Amino acid sequence: MRGPSGNPGRDVDSALVAAGERRIGWAARSMPVLTAIGERFAAERPLDGLRIAACLHVTAETAVLMGTLKAGGAEIALAASNPLSTQDDVAAALGEYGVGVHARAGVDRETYYRHIHQALDISPDIVLDDGCDLVNILHTERTELLERVTGGCEETTTGIIRLRQMAAERALRFPVVAVNDTRTKRMFDNRYGTGQSTIDGIMRATNTLLAGKTVVVAGFGYCGRGVAERARGLGARVVITEIDPVKALDASLQGYDVQPMTGAARAGDVFITVTGNRDVIRGEHLAVMKDGAILANAGHFDVEIDVRALDELAQAVHRGVRPNTDEYVLADGRRLLLLAEGRLVNLTAAEGHPAAVMDMSFSAQALAVAWLARERAELAPGVYDVPQEVDVEVARLKLAAAGIEVDTLTSEQEKYLHSWRLGS
Amino acid sequence: MRGPSGNPGRDVDSALVAAGERRIGWAARSMPVLTAIGERFAAERPLDGLRIAACLHVTAETAVLMGTLKAGGAEIALAASNPLSTQDDVAAALGEYGVGVHARAGVDRETYYRHIHQALDISPDIVLDDGCDLVNILHTERTELLERVTGGCEETTTGIIRLRQMAAERALRFPVVAVNDTRTKRMFDNRYGTGQSTIDGIMRATNTLLAGKTVVVAGFGYCGRGVAERARGLGARVVITEIDPVKALDASLQGYDVQPMTGAARAGDVFITVTGNRDVIRGEHLAVMKDGAILANAGHFDVEIDVRALDELAQAVHRGVRPNTDEYVLADGRRLLLLAEGRLVNLTAAEGHPAAVMDMSFSAQALAVAWLARERAELAPGVYDVPQEVDVEVARLKLAAAGIEVDTLTSEQEKYLHSWRLGS
Amino acid sequence: MRGPSGNPGRDVDSALVAAGERRIGWAARSMPVLTAIGERFAAERPLDGLRIAACLHVTAETAVLMGTLKAGGAEIALAASNPLSTQDDVAAALGEYGVGVHARAGVDRETYYRHIHQALDISPDIVLDDGCDLVNILHTERTELLERVTGGCEETTTGIIRLRQMAAERALRFPVVAVNDTRTKRMFDNRYGTGQSTIDGIMRATNTLLAGKTVVVAGFGYCGRGVAERARGLGARVVITEIDPVKALDASLQGYDVQPMTGAARAGDVFITVTGNRDVIRGEHLAVMKDGAILANAGHFDVEIDVRALDELAQAVHRGVRPNTDEYVLADGRRLLLLAEGRLVNLTAAEGHPAAVMDMSFSAQALAVAWLARERAELAPGVYDVPQEVDVEVARLKLAAAGIEVDTLTSEQEKYLHSWRLGS
Amino acid sequence: MRGPSGNPGRDVDSALVAAGERRIGWAARSMPVLTAIGERFAAERPLDGLRIAACLHVTAETAVLMGTLKAGGAEIALAASNPLSTQDDVAAALGEYGVGVHARAGVDRETYYRHIHQALDISPDIVLDDGCDLVNILHTERTELLERVTGGCEETTTGIIRLRQMAAERALRFPVVAVNDTRTKRMFDNRYGTGQSTIDGIMRATNTLLAGKTVVVAGFGYCGRGVAERARGLGARVVITEIDPVKALDASLQGYDVQPMTGAARAGDVFITVTGNRDVIRGEHLAVMKDGAILANAGHFDVEIDVRALDELAQAVHRGVRPNTDEYVLADGRRLLLLAEGRLVNLTAAEGHPAAVMDMSFSAQALAVAWLARERAELAPGVYDVPQEVDVEVARLKLAAAGIEVDTLTSEQEKYLHSWRLGS
Repeated sequence: MRGPSGNPGRDVDSALVAAGERRIGWAARSMPVLTAIGERFAAERPLDGLRIAACLHVTAETAVLMGTLKAGGAEIALAASNPLSTQDDVAAALGEYGVGVHARAGVDRETYYRHIHQALDISPDIVLDDGCDLVNILHTERTELLERVTGGCEETTTGIIRLRQMAAERALRFPVVAVNDTRTKRMFDNRYGTGQSTIDGIMRATNTLLAGKTVVVAGFGYCGRGVAERARGLGARVVITEIDPVKALDASLQGYDVQPMTGAARAGDVFITVTGNRDVIRGEHLAVMKDGAILANAGHFDVEIDVRALDELAQAVHRGVRPNTDEYVLADGRRLLLLAEGRLVNLTAAEGHPAAVMDMSFSAQALAVAWLARERAELAPGVYDVPQEVDVEVARLKLAAAGIEVDTLTSEQEKYLHSWRLGS
Repeated sequence: MRGPSGNPGRDVDSALVAAGERRIGWAARSMPVLTAIGERFAAERPLDGLRIAACLHVTAETAVLMGTLKAGGAEIALAASNPLSTQDDVAAALGEYGVGVHARAGVDRETYYRHIHQALDISPDIVLDDGCDLVNILHTERTELLERVTGGCEETTTGIIRLRQMAAERALRFPVVAVNDTRTKRMFDNRYGTGQSTIDGIMRATNTLLAGKTVVVAGFGYCGRGVAERARGLGARVVITEIDPVKALDASLQGYDVQPMTGAARAGDVFITVTGNRDVIRGEHLAVMKDGAILANAGHFDVEIDVRALDELAQAVHRGVRPNTDEYVLADGRRLLLLAEGRLVNLTAAEGHPAAVMDMSFSAQALAVAWLARERAELAPGVYDVPQEVDVEVARLKLAAAGIEVDTLTSEQEKYLHSWRLGS
Repeated sequence: MRGPSGNPGRDVDSALVAAGERRIGWAARSMPVLTAIGERFAAERPLDGLRIAACLHVTAETAVLMGTLKAGGAEIALAASNPLSTQDDVAAALGEYGVGVHARAGVDRETYYRHIHQALDISPDIVLDDGCDLVNILHTERTELLERVTGGCEETTTGIIRLRQMAAERALRFPVVAVNDTRTKRMFDNRYGTGQSTIDGIMRATNTLLAGKTVVVAGFGYCGRGVAERARGLGARVVITEIDPVKALDASLQGYDVQPMTGAARAGDVFITVTGNRDVIRGEHLAVMKDGAILANAGHFDVEIDVRALDELAQAVHRGVRPNTDEYVLADGRRLLLLAEGRLVNLTAAEGHPAAVMDMSFSAQALAVAWLARERAELAPGVYDVPQEVDVEVARLKLAAAGIEVDTLTSEQEKYLHSWRLGS
Repeated sequence: MRGPSGNPGRDVDSALVAAGERRIGWAARSMPVLTAIGERFAAERPLDGLRIAACLHVTAETAVLMGTLKAGGAEIALAASNPLSTQDDVAAALGEYGVGVHARAGVDRETYYRHIHQALDISPDIVLDDGCDLVNILHTERTELLERVTGGCEETTTGIIRLRQMAAERALRFPVVAVNDTRTKRMFDNRYGTGQSTIDGIMRATNTLLAGKTVVVAGFGYCGRGVAERARGLGARVVITEIDPVKALDASLQGYDVQPMTGAARAGDVFITVTGNRDVIRGEHLAVMKDGAILANAGHFDVEIDVRALDELAQAVHRGVRPNTDEYVLADGRRLLLLAEGRLVNLTAAEGHPAAVMDMSFSAQALAVAWLARERAELAPGVYDVPQEVDVEVARLKLAAAGIEVDTLTSEQEKYLHSWRLGS
């Protein structure tokens, strides 16, 4: 509600800013680790004098990360890694904080790339990327900026794959930390985050009672393990399908029933795919399922359930019989319920990972930036794992935020461990 | 909204009927036990010639019950036990099926009672009640109908209390079955239904990660036990508070941490009251809780959390920071999050019991009506428990619907058990 | 074995007494509830002037009970309820404490009955029995003592059945409390005691890894539930067989696989019967079991596994291939392993209930005696349940011994609960 | 000890052989994976013409391994890696099978080394070692044999440390597979084997009821995790102590209570150390424990509980109050119970890992030998991890033995995974 005259636009803006601030405030309270890092950064200023160009989802959680880096002394320009996810109120509030934001919800492809160029105009020392688009432009269209860039972070698996190819071809010109894969993130994100939110999505979509149901979980990686634990924790009998004998054996030793999908298809009331592979549930499986079976996917891509086969088998499809639930009626009268059209059920039918998960991965990101700032002189171009010290520090701060203490080694214990490792 | 002529109203109506039919069809598919009873009733016609007056929530699940009783041969008149819950499309569809429906959403008090009188006009042999209003009117204003009435069912605890008082004063004139309390319903409804739906409500309201959280469950009755199991199953540490030493001991032997609320208040991240008592969380407890603590009630009445005390402690209240979530800011800056204003969190923030639960209780109701029809000549006025045979039959049908078989006794085993019970 | 003179026998005796004292001391430390009752009895002397005749297993735990009653003021005479279980060192130590002991390990039948008569010679006010032999003799051969007897306790189910028959025939002349069945005892003894000790017995006998095994538990009563929980807790997949649909449904809702024995027999690696019925595992089941299947019984009598059918199927039997393990080789080469000859595996292959269990049941017994002493003037002859107050008191003391506190009702809460129960 | 004539020794011997055969037969039935490998080896003869010198514990399980290698075509000489563990009957039976055995229980140091020399006299192509003594002698005293040796396996962590030092100093002359660390072994041995057997040891030693107890597990590595799961599965509340924040966080997210030992020491009823470090429970912790606390170690060395501190605090020590249980009475009357003198409780008070565990590690060993036989021409000297294919094969065979099937990839799925990994 600024200005004595004119600019009603400013009025809209200040309301937007206020809305953005509330949203960022709410996110911040679920991000105690990043908040603690921000406080330390404010005292130690590890990023003083650094310029950062970031291409990330412009959301409240990202805003908390930007605030943390700024507290550490960095100057920041931010573009959106996806225009669909941009929260305009957050963008407005970030602008007020002094972050250069180049993002607006729903822009076209051209504007999207223009925004990235504008963010790069800051001439960064360090870059943060989510999918490798910014780094790619840097190496192709903005090579004049490369000299100054001394490091980067990449958030996604896809981005890492592109970077590793660049590194293999000796095209990558600076060190990049693969912040998407840390022990703490895997724990929070894959096992506990996906575990809970997948079940949450299924409950919101169907309101089905899981106690006493047979839940088939395809895939026993970190995510599948998390989903299986939660389904069991809600009273379901859990059947695991796997292709890897070692994982299958582990599932069996944890008391799960392990079967091939052919058998599981007949037994299941609810099916959850989380394998990373395609066509895990195929026509031959759909053909033998129980009337009323529920099909959900928690894997990244919507290829795990063969929806085309389902379409071909169905004589009728009733969309939206429940939120995010489509009913496929087969020739023999059986009805199969497909959730979220086979896309990620935890994002579509529920709200994705709780904010606590973003707290962990953005904290790793903030500490990785500080590590880059400190170590970049020593680092050759290439893709780096998150340093173990960052992982340990994130865990330490998370425990502190939860009020949990751990033991510390006595000097005799240090000595004992050391001598043992030396074998003497 | 029918027109005076040419009846375009009929068009509206037929759309309503179609909508109601779809809704009933969806409910029916989650009610395999009641459906199976309906098939048997259609073959055996145990209610042939009987007239039933019912006062129940006019919902899709109730419609399935009405269809079952009608299949058994009964003539039915139905009024709403609460005008707020009436689904007009279901009422319209039921009318098409030949059930006399006297119900419309949102009517006033006078119309509500007129509807009950209209339902009673059928001059019932058997009555179904939900809160004892119909039975009360029968005994006070419509006593001329009493001679014909030979039995009834009552769905709620409150109704049963009123009926027991009537029985104690020798005012009750026919036998009534208390269908709200059977082993199968307690299992489905209290333990597994409340357990899952309470957690569901908390997740929908807050999207909080339960793994690693400390969840305090006040009360270790059937409901509390269910909630505790589900919270543990989602990775929480669970603290139980109790006043009954025997239940407290059981909780402890099941590995739960048992504490008085004074201690639990300091430890908890999430609090769930489910005691049946008032003021379980009081000012003295609120005063020591952690910043960000979540408060939810899963007990029937909204008296378990002392919301007035919370109001008095708060310096500011932010309503709706999340769906069904109000934030209370205390003088020292701590923020407490009250879900659903302290009302039943599983009904308010989630969808209450899964339909499978209504399947169990309405199945008991249908079988109790058949039992009354058969036994009523022998039964003195009074309140009756659901006969054990009804409970066993409901469980048997539920297992059959799930494709689960149990063993049967050999004749030697029958003899052995019998001789043992005789002590010979 | 005392010598006629110079009494070297006394030397032996004092060693016996010392051994008995150590043994009683060890038992006492696992019986904090009974110890606490003993302290209160010592202060309040609720049994002053009473004479008690007891017929119980003469073990260290019984000795602690005797000490408790003596502390309460009673004069006691004790006979053995089974000469096989008598611990002579305990008997010797008890004698030193001033309890009249009439028991010796391994005596013949005649001596056994003589000992009971000697105990009765005290002319008791109250009797404690374990199997009803003492009460039977009192009502048949020692009727002259009946006038003085004002109450009794009976420890076993078998005894209770005999007493109920006597009561039904109006032959029972005084009130008897059925101390074998209390909520706390059922919890400790059946669910948690049998649960753990059954698994313990199987591990000691076979040293088999339970993780990943399929364990079939026949019967889902309190004991079966306890066994199933422990097997699942050790990583097994658990299959439940039942004849009661309600229990079967509960098992299914708890996530167990429920099958008839015909199917379970093919799936199981380990079988545990705990039904209270005979021939639960029969020839038809043995015929289809896997090579290496383990058969154990945790039910009271050794009738649940049809050992005769096993004998008939076997071409060879190798006794003792492991402790308490016999191997039956069938015609087709499959080998079945029968533990403890089909007798109670937790008593035979492990050590039966942990002492904590006896603490609960003997505490109920001590408090029941005090209750009888107080109320006996008001009580008609008959069999009485343990008063609920005794159960609550035992739980309260057990929690106190474990340092666990429960909440107490505020006066507003008392009022609320009371008004609710009154329905006003 | 065979006589030259009259040979009563033969009689003893043949009884010994028969006893050994029975013992080996019993072991073999718990080793289905190794048995299956043996059958394949017999068909494929992958070790034809190879000579193997082995230095292993001469037990029934080792005998099954020897039979497997022999079936594969190898000629074998076996010495004992520890004279205390030699089972003379097994040695006798192995001799009959045509394995050269140089081992006898209880021999002195000189004979121990002579036996190793005798085994080496076979002039091996491949060596199997358990602690590196044989390999050490080979590299120092029997260097003339080195030329022929083309590979080896080492079973223990200690041995691996010595070998890595040799490799680092370029002293190691052939490739050695570190068979002690595979995914399947870690799963069976550390997590499930140690988990169950540790609890088993505590139950055998104390017969204590774990339900409702507070069990403190120090260390949340693979072993600690297994112990914690089992303790929880038996109804205990579990407290974890850790020094690693990441492991501590994981424990917390799994619902365990995480505390420093200072706090845990006051809370615990049972303590289990499994950290790999010394002095985890120290005087300062012992000083605040509850009366009756139970102390057990499941770590490899007996250094985790500071027994000297316990000795100093104690005013009296009663050895053997229960099997493997010593009672330490402190000045203030509290009594602490130390199990197995602080040594590995699962080996001392129970029977160590179930045979199923040895099945996994010896199967890895057999397959590693076949892999060496096949690949040795290509392998430089050094320490090798077990090839992943061996691990997968062991898991595959274990699943097959348990009748569990897994899925296989369709060719589309293979292609999809492959393309994904390539990032195209």
